[in-house]
Amino acid sequence: MIVLLLTLPAVALLALVFALWKTAWISKQDPGTPRMQQVAGFIARGAMAFLKSEYKILAWVVFGISAFLFVHAYGNKQSSAFIALSFILGAGFSALAGYLGMRVATKANVRTTAAAQISLTRALAVAYSGGSVMGMCVVGLGLLGLSSLFIIFFKFLGSGYTLIQILSILSGYSLGASTIALFARVGGGIYTKAADVGGDLVGKIEAGIPEDHPLNPATIADNVGDNVGDVAGMGADLFESYAGALIGAMVLGATFLPGLMNALSTDTSLSLFYLPQLNEFRGLAAVILPLALAALGIICSIAGTFLVRVKEGQNPQKSLNYGGFFASGLFMLSSYFVIQWILPTQWIHEEMTYTSMRVYWATLIGLATGLLIGYITEVYTGSDYKHVKNIARESTTGAATNIIAGLGLGMQSTGFPILFLSMALVFSYQLAGLYGIAMAAVGMLANTGIQLAVDAYGPISDNAGGIAQMAELPEEVRDRTDKLDAVGNTTAAIGKGFAIGSAALTALALFVAYMHAAKIKVIDLGDPRVMAGLFIGGMLPYVFSAMALNAVGNAAMSMVQEVRRQFNDIPELKAALEVLRKHGAQLKTASSEEIKIFHQADGKPDYEKCIRISTQAALQQMILPGLMAIGIPVFIGFMPSLGATTLAGVLAGVTVSGVLLAIFQANAGGAWDNAKKTIERGMEWEGILHEKGSLAHKATVVGDTVGDPLKDTAGPSLNILVKLMSIVALIIAPSL
Amino acid sequence: MIVLLLTLPAVALLALVFALWKTAWISKQDPGTPRMQQVAGFIARGAMAFLKSEYKILAWVVFGISAFLFVHAYGNKQSSAFIALSFILGAGFSALAGYLGMRVATKANVRTTAAAQISLTRALAVAYSGGSVMGMCVVGLGLLGLSSLFIIFFKFLGSGYTLIQILSILSGYSLGASTIALFARVGGGIYTKAADVGGDLVGKIEAGIPEDHPLNPATIADNVGDNVGDVAGMGADLFESYAGALIGAMVLGATFLPGLMNALSTDTSLSLFYLPQLNEFRGLAAVILPLALAALGIICSIAGTFLVRVKEGQNPQKSLNYGGFFASGLFMLSSYFVIQWILPTQWIHEEMTYTSMRVYWATLIGLATGLLIGYITEVYTGSDYKHVKNIARESTTGAATNIIAGLGLGMQSTGFPILFLSMALVFSYQLAGLYGIAMAAVGMLANTGIQLAVDAYGPISDNAGGIAQMAELPEEVRDRTDKLDAVGNTTAAIGKGFAIGSAALTALALFVAYMHAAKIKVIDLGDPRVMAGLFIGGMLPYVFSAMALNAVGNAAMSMVQEVRRQFNDIPELKAALEVLRKHGAQLKTASSEEIKIFHQADGKPDYEKCIRISTQAALQQMILPGLMAIGIPVFIGFMPSLGATTLAGVLAGVTVSGVLLAIFQANAGGAWDNAKKTIERGMEWEGILHEKGSLAHKATVVGDTVGDPLKDTAGPSLNILVKLMSIVALIIAPSL
Repeated sequence: MIVLLLTLPAVALLALVFALWKTAWISKQDPGTPRMQQVAGFIARGAMAFLKSEYKILAWVVFGISAFLFVHAYGNKQSSAFIALSFILGAGFSALAGYLGMRVATKANVRTTAAAQISLTRALAVAYSGGSVMGMCVVGLGLLGLSSLFIIFFKFLGSGYTLIQILSILSGYSLGASTIALFARVGGGIYTKAADVGGDLVGKIEAGIPEDHPLNPATIADNVGDNVGDVAGMGADLFESYAGALIGAMVLGATFLPGLMNALSTDTSLSLFYLPQLNEFRGLAAVILPLALAALGIICSIAGTFLVRVKEGQNPQKSLNYGGFFASGLFMLSSYFVIQWILPTQWIHEEMTYTSMRVYWATLIGLATGLLIGYITEVYTGSDYKHVKNIARESTTGAATNIIAGLGLGMQSTGFPILFLSMALVFSYQLAGLYGIAMAAVGMLANTGIQLAVDAYGPISDNAGGIAQMAELPEEVRDRTDKLDAVGNTTAAIGKGFAIGSAALTALALFVAYMHAAKIKVIDLGDPRVMAGLFIGGMLPYVFSAMALNAVGNAAMSMVQEVRRQFNDIPELKAALEVLRKHGAQLKTASSEEIKIFHQADGKPDYEKCIRISTQAALQQMILPGLMAIGIPVFIGFMPSLGATTLAGVLAGVTVSGVLLAIFQANAGGAWDNAKKTIERGMEWEGILHEKGSLAHKATVVGDTVGDPLKDTAGPSLNILVKLMSIVALIIAPSL
Repeated sequence: MIVLLLTLPAVALLALVFALWKTAWISKQDPGTPRMQQVAGFIARGAMAFLKSEYKILAWVVFGISAFLFVHAYGNKQSSAFIALSFILGAGFSALAGYLGMRVATKANVRTTAAAQISLTRALAVAYSGGSVMGMCVVGLGLLGLSSLFIIFFKFLGSGYTLIQILSILSGYSLGASTIALFARVGGGIYTKAADVGGDLVGKIEAGIPEDHPLNPATIADNVGDNVGDVAGMGADLFESYAGALIGAMVLGATFLPGLMNALSTDTSLSLFYLPQLNEFRGLAAVILPLALAALGIICSIAGTFLVRVKEGQNPQKSLNYGGFFASGLFMLSSYFVIQWILPTQWIHEEMTYTSMRVYWATLIGLATGLLIGYITEVYTGSDYKHVKNIARESTTGAATNIIAGLGLGMQSTGFPILFLSMALVFSYQLAGLYGIAMAAVGMLANTGIQLAVDAYGPISDNAGGIAQMAELPEEVRDRTDKLDAVGNTTAAIGKGFAIGSAALTALALFVAYMHAAKIKVIDLGDPRVMAGLFIGGMLPYVFSAMALNAVGNAAMSMVQEVRRQFNDIPELKAALEVLRKHGAQLKTASSEEIKIFHQADGKPDYEKCIRISTQAALQQMILPGLMAIGIPVFIGFMPSLGATTLAGVLAGVTVSGVLLAIFQANAGGAWDNAKKTIERGMEWEGILHEKGSLAHKATVVGDTVGDPLKDTAGPSLNILVKLMSIVALIIAPSL
C-alpha cells in the first residue's frame, strides 16, 4: 500500500515531465516570419497581461478566504487552518496549470501557422502537442497536489484526526480549484466573447472587413480571448471537475469498506513508512482507489497521445478520435486489474454485499457515459448530421427561423444526455451504492489528460488561422489552418459536452458527500423548505446565465464604441478602410498608390486599448457572480429557518437546472456555429445555392453571434456554478 | 352546511347567467359594414372549423381514456367508473367553456371594430364584455361541475366510500379539464404561430405588404389563431388550474380537520338533506372551503367587472387594472368572514395547533403572490420600463444583440417570481401545513373570472384591429383599435405570468395531494432514483418546448410555401402585389388604372387553404406531446424498479424546470414584442432616430418573430405539462 501511495505523486510528476518534454519540442519549432512573430507577440503579451490582472484579483480572493479560515482556526476549529492550506495549494496549482498551459498555447499557435506553411501533418502535430501540455499540466498538478496533501496530512495528522476529518480538510483543495475555475471560466468567457462579438459587429457587419483582419483593432483581443477563455478557462474547469470527483469519491470511500474507519487515532498512521500489510489498510483501499485510477488514467492518456499522428491527406478528426478511443480502451482493460488488486473481492458492509467487480462496472459506466455524451454532442452540433443541416435550411427564410430552429435544437439535445446521466446514476448506485456514483465520476474523468489535449487543440488552431490571416500568408496556408480549425469546432463542442457531463457527475458525487458530511439522513421533497430550495436552486443558473450574457453585451458595446472611435479618429485607418471597401479584401483591383495608402495603416490600430477594455470588463463583471456562487450556500446553510436540508434542495435544483441549461446553451451555440460554416461551404436547397454573402449566410451570422456568448460564456460558467456551490456546501457541512 | 353546499352551484349558475346577459348585449351591438362582416365571418368560420376538428380528435381521446377507466371498473375497481364519469364531465365542461367563449369572442371582435368607429370608450366596453364572457364561462362551468359532482357523489356514494375515495373520484374532473387544456393550448399555440410566423415571413419580409393585409392569404388564419390560441387555449389553461387547485385543496382538506374522516361509512351522508348542525360536518369544512372561496371569487369578479369603464381620453389600462384590484380587495375582505364562518377558530390535529386565521393568511399569500408575479411581469415586459427600452437600444446594433438581450432578460426575469413562489410555499406551509399551500393556490385563482376577462380582451382587440385593416377602414379607427391592442399586449403578458404562477401553485398542491394519496411518507433526494427522476422530469419541459418550436417551424414552412404558391399562381394577386410594391400600402400615387388592377385581386387569396394548413399542423403535432404528458407518469409509476418515489422526483423536476422555462419564454417573448413596438413609436438613441423601417426596427422584427412561438406556443404549453403530469400521478396514486 505504501508503494502504491508513493507511486501516485510519481505518476503525477511523470505527466509534468511529459508536458515539459512537449514544451521543449514546441519551443524548438520554427516561429515563422518576423510579422507572424510580431502578431503572436501581441497575442501572447495580451494573454499574459490578462492572466496577470486576473491573478492579482484572485490573489486577494484567495487571501480573503484563507484569512477567514485561519481566523476561524483560532476559535475551536483547528482543522480550518489545514483546510486553508489545502485551499491555497488547490488554488495555486490550478492557477499554475492555467499559466503553464496558456504560455505554451501562445507559443504553439504561431508555430502551428509556420508548420502549416509546410504541411497539414506538421501543423496538426504542433497544435496537438500544445494542447497536450495543457492536458498533462491539469492532471499532473491535480493529482500531485491531492496525493501529496493526502500523504502528508495522513502522516502528520493521523494520530489526532479521523479519516473523515482528514478528507474534509482535503476538500479545501477542491474549493481552491473551484475558486480559480469560477473566475477563469466566467472572466475568460466574458473576455473572449466581448472581443469576438464587439469586433465582429463593427468589423464584419458595419465596416465590411473580414474576420481577423489586422485593420480591426479588436482582432488581437479576440485571439487573446481564445487563449484565456478556451485554454485557461476550460483547463481550470476540468481541473475543478477532476479534483472534485476525486475528493467526492474519497469522502464516500472512507465509509465504504469496513476496517480502518476511526482507527486512525491508534498508531497505524505511523506505520505508513514501514510497509504494512495490505489488509491492515483495508479500510483505506476505497479512499486510495480514486487516486490510483487517476494515476492509471494519466498513463493511458500519455500512451494515447503518442497515437495521434496524421498522414498527409488523412482526416485529422479521425486521428484525434483514435488517440482518445485508444486511451479509453486501455483504461477499460487495465483498471480491471488495479481495482481487483486494491479492493477485496467481496465484502459485507451495513448488511449489503459488495464486490470489486461491481465497483469496476460502476467506473466503466462513468467512462461510457462520458463517451456517449460526447457522441450525442457530435450528432447535435456536427456539420455532417441532419440537425445542423436543418438549421442551415431554416436560415434560408431569415434570421428569425434560424434562431427558432437553434433554440429548438438546443432544447431537444438535452434529452439523451440527461437520460444517460440518469441511467448512470441509478445503475452505478445499484452496483456500489453512493460510492458507485462517485466512482462513475472518477471513471468519466480518468482520461481528462487526453480529453483536454483535444479540447485545447481547438483554440490553438483557431489562433493559428488568425495569425495566418493577420500576417497575410498565402491562401494555401489559411486553407490548412481552416481545416484544423473546422475539426477544432467539433472537438470543442464534444469537449463542452464532456465538461458538462463530468460537472454533473462531480456535483452529484459532492452532493452525496455533502449529505454524508452534514449527517443528513433524508432530504424530503415533501418538505416545502426543500421544495423551495429546489425552486431557488433551479432559478440560479438562469440568473447566472443572464448576468454572463449581460456582461458580454455591455462589454461588447464598449468594444463597438472603441473600434468605431478608432475607425473615425485615426486618419490612416480611415483611408485604408476606404481602399478595402472599394476593392475587397484581396485588393486585386487596387492601384499601387492605393496599396501604399492601405499599408500606411499598418500598426496603427490600437490593439492595446481593446485588450484593456476586454480585460476590465471581464474582471469587473466576474466578481458578483463569483460572490453569489460562494455566498448563497453559506447564507442558506446558516440561515436559522432554512439550514442544511434546504441547502440540499438548492444544490439539487442548481445541479439539475444548471446541467440542463448548460447543455441547451452549449449545443445551440455549437450548432449555430456549424450551420454558418455549412452555408459558407455552399449549400444547395430547393434549387438555389446559398453561400457566403447570401441572405441565408447573413441569417447564420446572426445565429452564430447569438450562440457565441451562450456556448462560451454563460453555458460553461454553469459547470462551475454547479460544482462550486456543492464544494462550498461540503466544506461548511460539518458546521451546519 | 347544506345551504352552503347548495349555494355553490347556484353561484356558478349566476356566473353563467351573467355571461349570457353579456352575450345578449354584445349580439345587439352594430356588426359594422358588409365588408367587415364578411371578414369577421371568415374568422368566425375558421375558428369554429378548427374547434370542430379539434373536438373530434379530443372526443376520441376522451372516449379512449374513459373506456379504459370503464373496463378497469369491471375488474375490482368499481370507483374507476365514477372517475370516468367525472373525467367526461370535466372534459365536456372545459370544451363547452372554450366553445362558448370563442363563439362570443368572434362576435365581439367585429363589433369592437364597429364601436371603434364611434369612440374608444365604446370599443373598450365591447371588447371587455367579450372577454368577460370567456372568464365567467370558465369559472361558472368549472365550479358548477365540481360542486355538483361533489354533492351527487357525496349523496349517493356516501355510505360505501370514504371521503378520500370520493375526492379521488372527483380528481377525474380535473384530469378531463387537463386533457382538453393540453390539446387546446398546444394545438391552439401551434395553430396561431404557424399562421402568424408563416404569414409574416412571406408577407411582411418577402413581399413587403403590411401585417393583416387582405392580399396575404395567411391573414385570416392569423386572426383565427388569436381566437383558438389566446382565447380558447388560455381559457382551457385556467379552467385546468382552477379545477386542479380546488381538487388539490379538497384532497388535503379531507385530513386537515379531525372529525368526519372515515365516518362516511356511517349514515351521516343521508342526513345531507336534513340540515344537520355545522358541528356534525366539522371534518368536511376544510373540504368545502375551497369551493366556497371559489364561489366568493365569482361574486367579487362580477362586481369588479362593473367597474371597468373608461371615460373618453382616459388610459384603458388603468380602467382594466382598477376592476381587477377592486375584485382582489373585495375578496381579501370578504374571504375573512367566509373562512371564519366555515372553519373552527382553533383546533389541534396531529399535535399541531391550527387556526382559521392562519388559513386566511395562507389564502391571502396566494392572492398576493399572483398580484406580485403580475407586477414583475409588467416590469420586465412593459414598454415603460428600462428592460424593454434596453432591448430596443441593443437592437440598434442588429438582430444578434437584440436576441442576446432578450434571452438575458428572459433568464433574469425568473428571479423574483421564483423567490415569491418559494416564499409563498414556505410561509403558507408554516401557517397551515400542506393544506396551506393548496389554499394559497385557491387564493391565487379565486379571481380567475375577472383575470381571464382581461386576458381574453387582448386577442379580441387584436382581431378588431385586423378587421379594421382588412376592411380598409379610416386611419382613426385603426388608431383606436391600436390603442386597445397595445394595452392588450401588457395584459396578455401579465395574464401569462398569472397562468404560470397559478400552474406552479396548482402543481404543488397536486404534488402534495399525490404524496398523500400514494401514501408516500418521504421522498428522499439522497435516493439516486429520486435524483434520476428529478433529472428526467427537469428535462421534459425542454424536450416538450423543442417539440412545440419544431411544430411551429414546420407548419410555418408549409404556410410560407402555400403563400408563395398563391402569390405566383394567382395572376390577379400577382398584379395587385406589383401595384402595392410600387406605390406602398396607401396607394396614394397609384393611377386609377392601377387601383382597378389592385382591386381585381379582392377575394382572390385562398384563405381556406391556409386555414387548413394551420389546422392540420396543429392537430397532427399536438398528439405526440399529449401522449407523452399522459403516458410518462403512468410508465414511470408502474415500472417495477422505479415506481411512486421516482415519479415524485419526476413531478418535482418537471414543475421546477417547467415553471422556470415557461417564465423565461413568456417574458423574453413579451419583451421582444414590446421592444418592436417601442421602435415603431420612434426612439431616439445617441442622436439618431430609430423608427419603422430602420435597421433597428428590422432587428426587433426578428426578435418579435423569435419570441412569438416561445411566448404563445412553447411557454404556455409547459403550464399544462406541469399540471397534467401531476393530475395523472394523483389519479394513479392509489394503484401504485
